[in-house]
Amino acid sequence: MLLLDKIMVVLVEPSHPGNIGAVARSMKTMGLSHLVMVKPKKFPHYEASKRAAGAESVLLDAHVVDTVEQAVAECSLVLGTSVRDREVSWPTISPRLAAEQATAHLNAHNSHRAAILFGRESSGLSNEELDLGQAQIRIDANSDYSSLNLASAVQIICYEMRVAMKQGLSDEPLNENLTRAQLRQRSASEELRAGHLQHLQETLEQLDFVKSKPPTMLMRKLTRLYNKADLSIEEIQILRGILSAIQNQQHRS
Amino acid sequence: MLLLDKIMVVLVEPSHPGNIGAVARSMKTMGLSHLVMVKPKKFPHYEASKRAAGAESVLLDAHVVDTVEQAVAECSLVLGTSVRDREVSWPTISPRLAAEQATAHLNAHNSHRAAILFGRESSGLSNEELDLGQAQIRIDANSDYSSLNLASAVQIICYEMRVAMKQGLSDEPLNENLTRAQLRQRSASEELRAGHLQHLQETLEQLDFVKSKPPTMLMRKLTRLYNKADLSIEEIQILRGILSAIQNQQHRS
Repeated sequence: MLLLDKIMVVLVEPSHPGNIGAVARSMKTMGLSHLVMVKPKKFPHYEASKRAAGAESVLLDAHVVDTVEQAVAECSLVLGTSVRDREVSWPTISPRLAAEQATAHLNAHNSHRAAILFGRESSGLSNEELDLGQAQIRIDANSDYSSLNLASAVQIICYEMRVAMKQGLSDEPLNENLTRAQLRQRSASEELRAGHLQHLQETLEQLDFVKSKPPTMLMRKLTRLYNKADLSIEEIQILRGILSAIQNQQHRS
Repeated sequence: MLLLDKIMVVLVEPSHPGNIGAVARSMKTMGLSHLVMVKPKKFPHYEASKRAAGAESVLLDAHVVDTVEQAVAECSLVLGTSVRDREVSWPTISPRLAAEQATAHLNAHNSHRAAILFGRESSGLSNEELDLGQAQIRIDANSDYSSLNLASAVQIICYEMRVAMKQGLSDEPLNENLTRAQLRQRSASEELRAGHLQHLQETLEQLDFVKSKPPTMLMRKLTRLYNKADLSIEEIQILRGILSAIQNQQHRS
């Protein structure tokens, strides 16, 4: 079972059905599928399905429960989320650290589950609800405007979970058809680089572009320039093709 | 000036005004405020203002332009975004690496700006638009469902930028009096880069090096090559000097 499948997103009393749909979409794009709602105001609702836009499967599989305790009953790791600082201070961790800790926890305990709690649009999670978790995840936001949309908060957390847990996902390679592209991007060897720079220098000398022979300072700058570009084998071929065309032009003249 | 203030979010032909508002909200929560739109279908629009929900300031200050070139004209770092793999492979980096690179770039070049391009809801960015950037940021998503909402994509990128730049947030102004060496290393503007590539294309056409006019695929590869090199102003001068020498040679022939 993939680690991402062991994470439940728990929405506590969401008010707007559109937000529920947007949350489903945020989750599914990152590969999460378990949604639990505690007393949603309106669900099911056409607005939720509309905003889910292809992630209806998450809504169809969602569970609706009456209390946060029920929602997290099977979870050994429970993390609340907040954008605010609290007077009563729970251990507060960043989304990144939360993702690392969740990854470590789920890797260490094969049959366990984790829950991430997201509070009401208006008032977040209560202190009692945060008490159910081991820590609160604080998404650092603009202190002048920390009004993170519910689905955006879910997006950030799910994104961090995905990044942290990707190492465990061997069946989802980042790039499926990269072989040819990789070849195209493969850096040229030192020998190929030197060959190109030699060809370049010869061409510049033939062009009478250089004032001194050998044009040490100029070649130093061009070497630096092309080193920055980290030329691929294909790129060296293109550049040398151009140099040859310049030389052929000269021979004709 | 804070680093986050140097980043422009560029939406290319957004269709839905609601998305524009949601983008403004995503940006502002993370402390970004510069929004540029290329030919938005409907803007200004009440739906955008409604979804902005307190982030109207971003919409009021937003710029609307006709082309992506105009949008990024003042930016020395341009990054496109994508959730797909492309046949022609641009250097592809993760949101996290992009944030680190942008932080390093903006820290090193005090007066510079960066732009992050986000494509159309339906079809993303064109190859030509991706060509304007040094790299594409790929947000890794569920291969079965990668339909990331526009505002969600913006949220993830802005979140990573905020995390990376939080370390860089200091009131200490960077030295305004740059040394000559720094000037030499300063990245060329988008305008200077475009001028070089135009000059290069003309020269190649005159050399009869190209098989098709305009040599789109070749120029795409050369654009990528020189974007990788992050050319300085001085380097552009050198390269254009060489191109002029080639052209002079031809006129003599």
